Amino acid sequence: MKLDGRKEKRIFYQNLKSQIMVKATTYDGNQSFSIVSRNVQDVPPGHVRIKVAYCGVCGTDVHIYHGLMDKRVNMPITIGHEMSGVIDAVGAKVHDYTPGDKVVVRPLDNRAEKASDKGYSHICRDLKFIGIDSPGAMQQLWIVPAFTLHKLPADINMQLAALVEPLAVACHDVRRSRLQKNESALVLGGGPIGLLVALVARHVGAQVYLSEVNPTRIELARQMGFEVLDPSQEDVVKKLKAKTNDYGVDVVFEVAGVQATVDLMTEVAGIRGRIVMVAIHGQPRPVNLFQFFWKELELIGARVYEEDDYEKAIDLVTNHNLPLEQLITSVEPIANIQQVFETIDKNPDGMKVLLDCQAWD
Amino acid sequence: MKLDGRKEKRIFYQNLKSQIMVKATTYDGNQSFSIVSRNVQDVPPGHVRIKVAYCGVCGTDVHIYHGLMDKRVNMPITIGHEMSGVIDAVGAKVHDYTPGDKVVVRPLDNRAEKASDKGYSHICRDLKFIGIDSPGAMQQLWIVPAFTLHKLPADINMQLAALVEPLAVACHDVRRSRLQKNESALVLGGGPIGLLVALVARHVGAQVYLSEVNPTRIELARQMGFEVLDPSQEDVVKKLKAKTNDYGVDVVFEVAGVQATVDLMTEVAGIRGRIVMVAIHGQPRPVNLFQFFWKELELIGARVYEEDDYEKAIDLVTNHNLPLEQLITSVEPIANIQQVFETIDKNPDGMKVLLDCQAWD
Repeated sequence: MKLDGRKEKRIFYQNLKSQIMVKATTYDGNQSFSIVSRNVQDVPPGHVRIKVAYCGVCGTDVHIYHGLMDKRVNMPITIGHEMSGVIDAVGAKVHDYTPGDKVVVRPLDNRAEKASDKGYSHICRDLKFIGIDSPGAMQQLWIVPAFTLHKLPADINMQLAALVEPLAVACHDVRRSRLQKNESALVLGGGPIGLLVALVARHVGAQVYLSEVNPTRIELARQMGFEVLDPSQEDVVKKLKAKTNDYGVDVVFEVAGVQATVDLMTEVAGIRGRIVMVAIHGQPRPVNLFQFFWKELELIGARVYEEDDYEKAIDLVTNHNLPLEQLITSVEPIANIQQVFETIDKNPDGMKVLLDCQAWD
Repeated sequence: MKLDGRKEKRIFYQNLKSQIMVKATTYDGNQSFSIVSRNVQDVPPGHVRIKVAYCGVCGTDVHIYHGLMDKRVNMPITIGHEMSGVIDAVGAKVHDYTPGDKVVVRPLDNRAEKASDKGYSHICRDLKFIGIDSPGAMQQLWIVPAFTLHKLPADINMQLAALVEPLAVACHDVRRSRLQKNESALVLGGGPIGLLVALVARHVGAQVYLSEVNPTRIELARQMGFEVLDPSQEDVVKKLKAKTNDYGVDVVFEVAGVQATVDLMTEVAGIRGRIVMVAIHGQPRPVNLFQFFWKELELIGARVYEEDDYEKAIDLVTNHNLPLEQLITSVEPIANIQQVFETIDKNPDGMKVLLDCQAWD
C-alpha cells in the first residue's frame, strides 16, 4: 500500500516526537523509587500534557512509600498530586487551555459518578484519585484530563502554587465548618494541613488557637502568629474556657487523628459547637456522644475539596499575603526522590517538602 | 391594730382558700411515691396555677424512680413534665392567659441564661428542667412561670395534648436533621420517642424506615404503617441499600442508645448523610470516625425543644391525623402512681402510660 505525502509527513513527525525521551519516577514497592526514561506520549482527546514544575510530598505519598497502600496502588506507579506546572500540549477537543498556561490539577477523576451519588462528585463512590489510583505528578511530563485543571495567574510563584492542593483541603474544611468572622476556632494538630486550616480560619476573621505537642511545630506556629496550646503542658479546655466566657470554642478542627484529640474535641466545643473531622482515623474511637446530645454539637466530615475550594485556594495564594513560604521545609531535586522520602521519614519536625520536577540531574 | 372592712374580707377569703386542700404525689426515694394533701398555694406574679389533666410517664421519670437521679432531684419531690391542663388561676402581671385556658407547659426554666450561652436558651448551661430540678406535674394543681406556657385549642383532646412534650422532642429532632420531602430516613429504636420521630419524619414526606428488635414494638410500628427492619433477623444495611440505589439513607435518628445502633448509624448513612443523636449515651462509644471523613457524614446532637417545636407539635396534634392514640398504652388514675411505675418497670413492651391527674380516689 502506497502512502500519500501528508500521511508520510505525519508519521515522520510522530516518530521524531516518540524519540524525545522524558523522565519519570516510579514507586516500585519495598520503600523504593526508580527513575525511568520514556518516550513522550501523545495527548488523547480531552486531555493535556503538563510540564510539571513542583510537586509537594503529601502524607498520603509517605503512606504509599511505607507500603500501607500497596493493595490499592498499581506498582510500578508514578505518584504525587500536590503540583504546579505549565501546559506543554493539548489534545483534541480542549479549548480552554493552550501551551504555556500555568495550571494546577484537582486530582479527582469522577468519571464513574452515578446519579445515586446525589451530585457529590468529589466524594462519589467510584472516585479515582489521580496520583494514587492512576499515574501522578512526580514526572517530567504528566497527562491528565482537562476537566481536572484550574488556571493560574501568569505571575504566580510556582512553588507556592504547588501548595494549592493542600490549601484547597483547608478551604474545604473551613467551608464545611461554616466558620464566621469573630468566632473562635481550635485546630487540633499543627502539621501542614493543621497550619493551613489555621491560616484559612484566621483569614475568615476568626480567633484561632492551635493545639500541638511537637516543640518544633509549636515554634513554627508561633512564628506564624498563632496562639499555641500544648496539651502535654497545660489544661487546654480550662485555658480556652477562661478566654471565652466559659463558653469553649465555636469550631474545632480535628486534624491530629489520635484518641487524645477525640477526647478533647467534645470537651472544648461550646454549645452548638461544630467539630470538623479532617483526620483519617483508621480504627473506631471512643467518642463522648453524651456531649453531642447535651450541647447539641455537630460533627462534620470533610474530605478533599470541590471546585470552589480550588478557586479559593488559588485566590489566597495570589491575592493574599498568607505566610505560606514558611510551610516549605525544603525544595529538593526530583532526581533525589529516594533520599527525600528517607529523610522525610526520619524528620517528624518537617512540614512540606517540594520536589523540583525540572531537576533531573 | 384595727383592720378596715376590705382588708378583713380579703383575709377571710385567703384563709378560706388556704383551707381548700389539694393532692399531690411525691417521689421519696427508694422506688417509692407518696400521695400528700396540701393547702392550695397562692400564685406568685408572673406565674399561673394549672389544674393538671393528664401527665405522661417519661423515660426520665422511670430513671428517677430507679434512683438513678437521686443526686439531682431534691426529694421528696413531685415529678412529671409531659402534661396537659387548664389554667386555674393567674398571678399578677400575667396578661395572656385566663382561667379556663387549656395549656401545655414547656418545662424549661432558662432564667439563669447568660449572654455567653449565645442565645441557645433551651440548652443554656444553667437550665433548670421543671419536673426534675423543681416540682413537676404529677399533682392536682401545679404552679409554673407563665413564660413556659403554650395555649391549646379549646376542642383539643387532652389525652393527646399530654403527648405534646414528647412530640415536640420529635419535632426538634426532625428539624435538626433538615429532613426534606422524598428523602429517606431510618429511625433506630421503636420506643415512644422513636415512633414519634418516625411519625414526624413521615409527615415531612420522607420515606421512613424503623429498626427495632422487640416483637411487640415491631408489631405496633407496622400497625402504624411503618416498614420495620429487625437487625436481629436481617442485614439492615444491605436491605436499605437495595432499596436506595446502593446509596443508604439520607438521615439516621439514633434513638436506641446502644453500641449496635452506633455501629449501624455510620454504615447505613449515605454520602453526606445526617445522623441525629437523640439517645443519651452514658458512656463513650467506639464510633467509626473514618466513615465521617469518607462520606462527609454529619452527626447532629439534639436535646429537648425550642418554642417553634412546641407550636409545631400542637399543630400536629390539632390539625393532622397522626395515629398518636396508638402510642397510649393505658390511662391510669394518679391515685395508683406507685403501682403504675411498678407495672411500667415490668413491661418492656409498653409505650406511653398517662396518669389521669383528676382521679385521686
